[in-house]
Amino acid sequence: MDRIENARFLPDWLARSAGSFPQRLAVQDGQTRWSFADLDRAASRTARQLATLGVQAGDRVALLAGNSCTYVAVVHALTRLGAILVPLNARLTPGELCWQLRDVRATLLVHDARCAAPATAIGRELSDLRRAALAETAGNNTTAIGALPGADVALRSLIDLDAIQAIMYTSGTTGQPKGAIITYGMQWWNAVGSVLNLGHAPDDRWLACLPLFHIGGLSILMRSAIYGIGVIVHERFDAATVNRSLREDGVTMISVVAVMLKRMLDALDAEQPGSGYPPALRCVLLGGGPAPYPLLEECARRAIPVVQTYGLTESCSQAVTLAPGDALRKPGSAGRPLMPVQLRVLRDGQPAPAGEPGEIYLRGPTITPGYADRPEETARAFRDGWLATGDIGYLDGEGYLYVLDRRADLIISGGENVYPAEVESVLLSHPDVAEAGVCGQPDAQWGQVPIAYVHLRDGSTLSTSADELLAYAGQRLARYKLPRAIYFVGPLPRNASGKLVRRALRE
Amino acid sequence: MDRIENARFLPDWLARSAGSFPQRLAVQDGQTRWSFADLDRAASRTARQLATLGVQAGDRVALLAGNSCTYVAVVHALTRLGAILVPLNARLTPGELCWQLRDVRATLLVHDARCAAPATAIGRELSDLRRAALAETAGNNTTAIGALPGADVALRSLIDLDAIQAIMYTSGTTGQPKGAIITYGMQWWNAVGSVLNLGHAPDDRWLACLPLFHIGGLSILMRSAIYGIGVIVHERFDAATVNRSLREDGVTMISVVAVMLKRMLDALDAEQPGSGYPPALRCVLLGGGPAPYPLLEECARRAIPVVQTYGLTESCSQAVTLAPGDALRKPGSAGRPLMPVQLRVLRDGQPAPAGEPGEIYLRGPTITPGYADRPEETARAFRDGWLATGDIGYLDGEGYLYVLDRRADLIISGGENVYPAEVESVLLSHPDVAEAGVCGQPDAQWGQVPIAYVHLRDGSTLSTSADELLAYAGQRLARYKLPRAIYFVGPLPRNASGKLVRRALRE
Repeated sequence: MDRIENARFLPDWLARSAGSFPQRLAVQDGQTRWSFADLDRAASRTARQLATLGVQAGDRVALLAGNSCTYVAVVHALTRLGAILVPLNARLTPGELCWQLRDVRATLLVHDARCAAPATAIGRELSDLRRAALAETAGNNTTAIGALPGADVALRSLIDLDAIQAIMYTSGTTGQPKGAIITYGMQWWNAVGSVLNLGHAPDDRWLACLPLFHIGGLSILMRSAIYGIGVIVHERFDAATVNRSLREDGVTMISVVAVMLKRMLDALDAEQPGSGYPPALRCVLLGGGPAPYPLLEECARRAIPVVQTYGLTESCSQAVTLAPGDALRKPGSAGRPLMPVQLRVLRDGQPAPAGEPGEIYLRGPTITPGYADRPEETARAFRDGWLATGDIGYLDGEGYLYVLDRRADLIISGGENVYPAEVESVLLSHPDVAEAGVCGQPDAQWGQVPIAYVHLRDGSTLSTSADELLAYAGQRLARYKLPRAIYFVGPLPRNASGKLVRRALRE
Repeated sequence: MDRIENARFLPDWLARSAGSFPQRLAVQDGQTRWSFADLDRAASRTARQLATLGVQAGDRVALLAGNSCTYVAVVHALTRLGAILVPLNARLTPGELCWQLRDVRATLLVHDARCAAPATAIGRELSDLRRAALAETAGNNTTAIGALPGADVALRSLIDLDAIQAIMYTSGTTGQPKGAIITYGMQWWNAVGSVLNLGHAPDDRWLACLPLFHIGGLSILMRSAIYGIGVIVHERFDAATVNRSLREDGVTMISVVAVMLKRMLDALDAEQPGSGYPPALRCVLLGGGPAPYPLLEECARRAIPVVQTYGLTESCSQAVTLAPGDALRKPGSAGRPLMPVQLRVLRDGQPAPAGEPGEIYLRGPTITPGYADRPEETARAFRDGWLATGDIGYLDGEGYLYVLDRRADLIISGGENVYPAEVESVLLSHPDVAEAGVCGQPDAQWGQVPIAYVHLRDGSTLSTSADELLAYAGQRLARYKLPRAIYFVGPLPRNASGKLVRRALRE
């Protein structure tokens, strides 16, 4: 008896949920609703179609598509073939996509109708790469790739936790993307850690308005299959549509980033000022970076159950999450590490004392084993088995994490650390400010100084001389944190998951 | 980066819950209530006291005590020392206990005041075995072993899932008890499988009226530490007391066997006929063998949320459990395997068709790696990595398990396993007994009771009133194993290879 082998293989998650809850909603996409039995059938049919296209175990299959039921079917189909999912960011240019496809040595590109144009452009550049178009999701027609016949191949019924589920490209904040390895074990342990923290009810439903090609979206699909709960998939984020979905679709959980949540509140106010959500919504999981304080306060006023989380692609989404019971007691904190995760905050290689910032290190079964085909970058990312996240934070006396910023975005001004997120949060607390981004600018005297880019709300009466806003910020921030300049601009640059891209601010 | 190592060590469960929920109730025993901070402190103090007594990593420490807060402290203390718990069945005779203590090579016997008499008797026979008496639980006095000072030793902060938590004696089908290995991984995966099936809420509370020395009780303690939920520990099962606790102690989950549940309903009727429990009680987990149909129907009438479960010591309690949503649709079924468990019903080595009985086989991370120090018995128990349970059952068309007989000849009396071969071997040890056969007889109160058929040697002078032989057996067997009746008969029915055919005894 080999214990480790015993704990390595699990029954296929989707198949098990389909066996236990065949009629329960698995995934809903607009008007299309698939039960677990439907999704299970779709996954197997799609797997056989992919086999017809030559997909074999270990192949890297790129998926370029918007959020939909069919997207979910392809994800599970690849599992049944033992093939590796490479989810592509639909907002990238064909040039960027070609770079990733070459780098990962993809053998097939699966795309939907919305991505037909970039797929064609890619085809011109990578003429050897096979392509397959997904059918539109329609009713219970669970055939993903049109009328293509399925090959008679054996599909896997066990999931190997040590196997690679996906290779997901991430830039970090600095430069060249690299493919982070996501194993099934990472997904499993993440789902388990999440459920032990957030709880689990059989009638839970998770709203996914984050792109499924990011870890925050993909991990929702895995939780759905593992828990046997439904996912309400939105093709894109639209605040009013999401608000309606929260009221009408029996949603109990939603994952968002701060800018989304802010827009959802604005959309609520447009209908009924100060309103909130039905009590069935028991968890608004807020990730994607430090949240502005005023937003958290506003949610508390409306009894919106926000819990902050901290995670990254390399930690398979949530690594540290506030417990729902701590939301009001620890505002601004990302909470404590999920059960399987170990966390350290180090300064000069030593654990930082409570309250003192340092770099965040993570270890445990939800942490990536590394970057595909990049042993050097993998080695650089780890120290003694701990992932160096590049994020700065501190632990309070009770071990709760407060994330300050990305180390790469940190501004050092006259020897003082200025955390852009903190300055942005003050600017955002002004009622006329819709978006704010802060970054460092070289300065002969101070080394760096913070400067701010602000996007005002429609109808703002704020003076664009900046004096008025600087005076407001000056009452709330130490002098060295005060932006040296404020530029009033249009909407700020964000990545596909809505995160501010600070290094693009100056461009 | 070694993935497997990464998924092998978890933060100490109790310490983590104490960090996250210091003030939340961890364990309550009568009037004593310990928060997670209290229990955490008690576990560390007790660990240091055990170290003073010489306990080291890998030592096998026997615990002979009734259910109490202190029992829980000792369980977690052993974890922090890396020592192995050997929970003894307080209903066994001193002779039976000495056999187990010798067999397991225990280095220390920890006992409470209630078990002082058997501990003294054991001390007379095993004079080399050190003994330690537990203090009575009182208020927040979290020192388990009186005023004994604690040694200054390093306590473990990580749990190795591959390490042995406990060795738990079970008789299997063949009389002689053997120590089943229970690893931390088995407990962890069981807790995870349970939560994915039964759900999890932070304010859950589990009532433990099963003995903590059985796997059904011990696994509740592990779930409590892993989930961060409270356990209401009852020293012994008393139906009216349990009913009061269900009404007054915020209990949401309870584990019972059928005979307990029946008495609880009777006690309810004595107060108010036909009454049930508060809606907060969301799960009555019913194990310990097939449940009588009328009992399930009666619970359904009273809206008592019963879910049946099937498991054994070797599967770390639940292996197969009904989903709460299926309770009314699948009465009599033990449900589907918990997520990490694989299940097969085999007849003549082949999967039995739906509806056809066969032997139940189990595989997965909640299944024991084997029996301590018994490689041959371990090898016999497994086939290709699958545990042969010896239990008979069938799967319906939807994959739901119906257990027919908990091992062909096993007698379950009041939730306790009575193994015919063990009772027979005691009877056979009497010089006048030539043959002995034991089987179960239906009993309104206990479900089943053992009865014996004995063929005396020629020239026996034994009184055939049975009193004399019963007195002999009573000195060697726990009370619940004692045959209710002994019939003196001619030669017993045997098959061609000379094996006793127990099912033919009553004919």
